[in-house]
Amino acid sequence: MPFSAEELARRLDLGLHGDPATTVSGVATLAQATPASLGFLANPRYRGQLAHTRAGIVVLRAADAEGYPGTALIAADPYVAFARAAALFETRPAPAPGLHPSAVVDASARVHPDAQVGAFVSIGARSVVGAGAVLGPGCAIGEDCVVGAQCELVARVTLVRRVRLGRRVLIHPGAVLGADGFGLAMDAGRWLKVPQLGGVVVGDDCEIGANTTIDRGAIEDTVLEEDVRLDNQIQIGHNVRIGAHTAMAGCAAVAGSATIGRYCLIGGGAGVLGHLELCDRVVVTAMSLVTHSIREPGEYSSGTPLMDNRRWRRSAARFKQLDALARRLGALRDN
Amino acid sequence: MPFSAEELARRLDLGLHGDPATTVSGVATLAQATPASLGFLANPRYRGQLAHTRAGIVVLRAADAEGYPGTALIAADPYVAFARAAALFETRPAPAPGLHPSAVVDASARVHPDAQVGAFVSIGARSVVGAGAVLGPGCAIGEDCVVGAQCELVARVTLVRRVRLGRRVLIHPGAVLGADGFGLAMDAGRWLKVPQLGGVVVGDDCEIGANTTIDRGAIEDTVLEEDVRLDNQIQIGHNVRIGAHTAMAGCAAVAGSATIGRYCLIGGGAGVLGHLELCDRVVVTAMSLVTHSIREPGEYSSGTPLMDNRRWRRSAARFKQLDALARRLGALRDN
Amino acid sequence: MPFSAEELARRLDLGLHGDPATTVSGVATLAQATPASLGFLANPRYRGQLAHTRAGIVVLRAADAEGYPGTALIAADPYVAFARAAALFETRPAPAPGLHPSAVVDASARVHPDAQVGAFVSIGARSVVGAGAVLGPGCAIGEDCVVGAQCELVARVTLVRRVRLGRRVLIHPGAVLGADGFGLAMDAGRWLKVPQLGGVVVGDDCEIGANTTIDRGAIEDTVLEEDVRLDNQIQIGHNVRIGAHTAMAGCAAVAGSATIGRYCLIGGGAGVLGHLELCDRVVVTAMSLVTHSIREPGEYSSGTPLMDNRRWRRSAARFKQLDALARRLGALRDN
Repeated sequence: MPFSAEELARRLDLGLHGDPATTVSGVATLAQATPASLGFLANPRYRGQLAHTRAGIVVLRAADAEGYPGTALIAADPYVAFARAAALFETRPAPAPGLHPSAVVDASARVHPDAQVGAFVSIGARSVVGAGAVLGPGCAIGEDCVVGAQCELVARVTLVRRVRLGRRVLIHPGAVLGADGFGLAMDAGRWLKVPQLGGVVVGDDCEIGANTTIDRGAIEDTVLEEDVRLDNQIQIGHNVRIGAHTAMAGCAAVAGSATIGRYCLIGGGAGVLGHLELCDRVVVTAMSLVTHSIREPGEYSSGTPLMDNRRWRRSAARFKQLDALARRLGALRDN
Repeated sequence: MPFSAEELARRLDLGLHGDPATTVSGVATLAQATPASLGFLANPRYRGQLAHTRAGIVVLRAADAEGYPGTALIAADPYVAFARAAALFETRPAPAPGLHPSAVVDASARVHPDAQVGAFVSIGARSVVGAGAVLGPGCAIGEDCVVGAQCELVARVTLVRRVRLGRRVLIHPGAVLGADGFGLAMDAGRWLKVPQLGGVVVGDDCEIGANTTIDRGAIEDTVLEEDVRLDNQIQIGHNVRIGAHTAMAGCAAVAGSATIGRYCLIGGGAGVLGHLELCDRVVVTAMSLVTHSIREPGEYSSGTPLMDNRRWRRSAARFKQLDALARRLGALRDN
Repeated sequence: MPFSAEELARRLDLGLHGDPATTVSGVATLAQATPASLGFLANPRYRGQLAHTRAGIVVLRAADAEGYPGTALIAADPYVAFARAAALFETRPAPAPGLHPSAVVDASARVHPDAQVGAFVSIGARSVVGAGAVLGPGCAIGEDCVVGAQCELVARVTLVRRVRLGRRVLIHPGAVLGADGFGLAMDAGRWLKVPQLGGVVVGDDCEIGANTTIDRGAIEDTVLEEDVRLDNQIQIGHNVRIGAHTAMAGCAAVAGSATIGRYCLIGGGAGVLGHLELCDRVVVTAMSLVTHSIREPGEYSSGTPLMDNRRWRRSAARFKQLDALARRLGALRDN
């Protein structure tokens, strides 16, 4: 499935410099590209590679195209243009609608005839699977769940109960949605489990990473609005609410009843304590801990810089004395 | 299944203010309640909602009930009372004892006839499943495991080998107990794997969250005493021992051979290094790292506060200079 | 399967002190050993236990053997020697080559007749399983995967697609290799998914922990060189490259396109940001965040020490003022 520069420019609505007949049959990084590759330059970190790339066609900004002698597609956002181009070269397993003979479907469940239900899938009472949905091998769908049209649960995804997915939700293997929230009350020296009566609601076009967990609500639902994107191994506590278009990188965690706004970016390994509220367009850098609500858009951080361990030990020891040091400094000034 | 205030008061042994005939058919937060809802006020953060709630009945402390005009159930601990009340409204799938036809059970395993073994469950050699235990779809039980009476493995739980669960242990989907501990020795420039010959022992009434991992011991067993409560995505290394009634929030991790006392609370994302000992009643706040043994009950923390990124960068840069700053301060004082 | 001291010394090429006829039938810690146990002393932390151990035979260094009255095996590296000895006592389920009747194998896949394919395993189009490989219950192998000779996928492992394992790779339950990398471009206020066209390549003798996730590359492959050892719940982003013999402890995470050298040790919960390069023999301590490339071997850290929460609060408050404090100190000096 080769494409010419001319065809790519037309399909993707991009400017074209150079030879419109140049043809490529796959994508590559600038460093690894061959004359049969489509490459791209989006991250300025890699600009130096442009001089040496063998890529047949390069997607780049107009400014970067100046002086570039090869065939180029000009894009206002080369990463977006590249994403669209790469989709042309993507191969995916052919759809195979219908139930695999090994699947176990409760008599009260409803599966659309266009849906694809793979090997070793179980579907519980009163659950519904929509048109064009794909449940890959080993998925376990419990009671009272809804899998919307065109959803894809890649493999071994669990929806425990009362999980309702919108349309085109993509969930990667090992993710668990709708497990009990972590609700405990201490009662006469022993833990008493608090029933978790809510569900999970996931909006259209969300993506949920491998081994990510999203607990169901204690009373009301845990909610992801549309187009929320969660990477792998993220933990979302019960009754959390995440606004539309927010993205969270791997291993981030949000404790129970926190509310995250729209268009937020939560860095890898970052944490948000329970019951907090983050407004729209908050950026939290990797491995930071959010300990109070945030009312102003902006970028927030905690932690200390990486240091050689020996130097770090000295700074860390001084951190313990920080209040005393500050008081001594104050006393000196007052003298 | 509606309940009157009078019946709830009697069943839960609570005081009653207002109309004993008020009837509710479900639970709700104060903010979302309708006249058919039972609400509760435990967290003072939500006290302001009491004035506007439409809840038919509210569970609260005597002090909060003063001046409240509606029907109220009076509890010394409203959260505990609410947990018990909510259990009355909880619906769970009906038990279905017996083996699903797809289950694969080794000839040497013993499964109690009252136990429920779901679709696509495998049970290995010499393993035993007790009365009333539930193994949900996709669970994989290896060799020499014991699943005690009334345990519930919700779905897709793995017990690798030599895992012995007490009674009423609840394990959420994706959890893996009894995988090899991470034991390696460097031998002539290559890693040599150290055999992991121990098992995992889990006491009665423990709860283990989704995608949590508990490795089996290298020589002796990894042990959770009774009533330990682990949230999702927790990592417990080999030969760890966790005391009774300790609770750990999501994404916490305990490295090999550490010993945690009873009634400890380990915050989300917190870490405990290997071979350390924590006494009883230690609280570790979220994302703190425990780097030395703790001999005194109390609350412990590490890390820095969340800041606007620009201000944080300045503090972080100064952290690197902290030892030099302290020395300069000392020199000034000595002048 | 008892072994005499003489036989152990011969098999493991170790020195022998004491009675060559002493016989042991299992391994134990020094504290728990009986006369039928083989114990070992490698960690100096446990040297005090030597005086009281009841172990029939102890593996230790020559220096520690001086004055020890019992039977001892002398090793330059007692931990390595113990690992080899323990392997003699390890029992493993007997291999059972062939396909379990419940397994679902695509017609275009090739499974070596010596391989063992367990219950509820699915194998997708064009995938290949080598001689002596073991796929435990519930593994899901997608399209275009290679499982090399003698690999073991313990249970419920997912290889999504284009994952190529070398020989003798050991993967623990719940691990997910080859899921989509987290590639997104913001396009007119919505996320656009970037196709993930690469695969995952894992070298010989790698070990991958329970619930660990390794995404496939966006364009090129994500690569683990030989003998890489990953503990549980580790997250490896797309296009990461990890050098031979590097080991990472539980819950560590490496963001996309980072390159880690050979013989590195990454501590538990540590993070490496995307696109960074770490040279060979870098040690990162637990829960540190690597925010810049590292060109010098050595040990690196970030974070602050664990403190009593009340004292920590005071230091943390001063951390926010650190730049102002440093400026004041500078002003005082200039006076």
